Amino acid sequence: MRMEHFTAAGKLPAIASIASEPIPLHLERRWGAVLTADVVEYSRLTSLNEERTYFLYKSHRRDLIDPKIQEHCARFVKSTGDGILAEFRTALDATHCAIQIQQGMAERCAGVSPDRRIVFRMGLSCGKIIADSEDIYGHDVNVAARLQTVAPPGGLAMTHEIAERVQDTLRLPLEDLGLQQLRNMCRPVHVFQCRFAGVEGE
Amino acid sequence: MRMEHFTAAGKLPAIASIASEPIPLHLERRWGAVLTADVVEYSRLTSLNEERTYFLYKSHRRDLIDPKIQEHCARFVKSTGDGILAEFRTALDATHCAIQIQQGMAERCAGVSPDRRIVFRMGLSCGKIIADSEDIYGHDVNVAARLQTVAPPGGLAMTHEIAERVQDTLRLPLEDLGLQQLRNMCRPVHVFQCRFAGVEGE
Repeated sequence: MRMEHFTAAGKLPAIASIASEPIPLHLERRWGAVLTADVVEYSRLTSLNEERTYFLYKSHRRDLIDPKIQEHCARFVKSTGDGILAEFRTALDATHCAIQIQQGMAERCAGVSPDRRIVFRMGLSCGKIIADSEDIYGHDVNVAARLQTVAPPGGLAMTHEIAERVQDTLRLPLEDLGLQQLRNMCRPVHVFQCRFAGVEGE
Repeated sequence: MRMEHFTAAGKLPAIASIASEPIPLHLERRWGAVLTADVVEYSRLTSLNEERTYFLYKSHRRDLIDPKIQEHCARFVKSTGDGILAEFRTALDATHCAIQIQQGMAERCAGVSPDRRIVFRMGLSCGKIIADSEDIYGHDVNVAARLQTVAPPGGLAMTHEIAERVQDTLRLPLEDLGLQQLRNMCRPVHVFQCRFAGVEGE
């Protein structure tokens, strides 16, 4: 059973669609590369100036991030408040998109003072994911979300599976962090990270 | 400018709508009560058994959580993978809904072994939020998300503003935690928590 359409929740107070969403009896799983991104210290930026942070974040989304995701034919799964979750067909698409966004952010934020600078961290993983009408699920999605939290500001953290699929083509300055015990994961994950010159946060 | 409709992202690979979303020039802010919920140790449960965790989580969503949100006339803002973000008209609606979900979860999970038990933590806050077509934003949304991470398993953590609005009506067993320095928040937040007998995780 494929359930790839979105059953968008309605505006306040109409939420007719969510309660009746069927749970598929047999999951169709598909291979996907997952990119998660969020803003470093978003809560602090917001508590300093909510509206400025909102406008800056939305302008980066509109002018850089969303178009790059679109260019790479990804599924934009959802906004995460201060970032995004997207699913790509290949590890190369996902990584290429992530690099282009981080390089674009470096250009957009050049000369901006640190207290106004929006800097993203990104996590990349791949594998057989569970997808339904509202979200994507599974261990590999959780790994991407966890890698994002340990990624260098302005850089990427990725699984070994992503690294080996992209390295020959992209020739990234990858740093092998070895097996890392990520929070709440039963097994350690082999992590690579990538920093870009001039992209660091503070 | 009101932008309360949802511009749902398309299925893979169609994502036509997201790149062109306008940023409102003047924000309309509205008062709202925010409820965030997520599953305690979701990544661990998923890495033990992805499909079982998915089915359990989705059945709790379908049979308990989404109907309760609907009953309380909330805006279901989004899935967060292992939880939800919802916006309510009143603090009383949000808190009442949260209590009913936690009590319902206690009943549904009675007798279930800890390694299969889905237990939610919930955060509640309120204030003038920024809302656009895809998400809600602002300091008070971030506070709810942060409170959720410090809430007791099966219980609630809420701001002082929520507590004082609901206490006369609901007579909850609230514990005053005083001013707490939450991660990445510039100012400490006055936090109350609420545990329910028989709802604890492990």
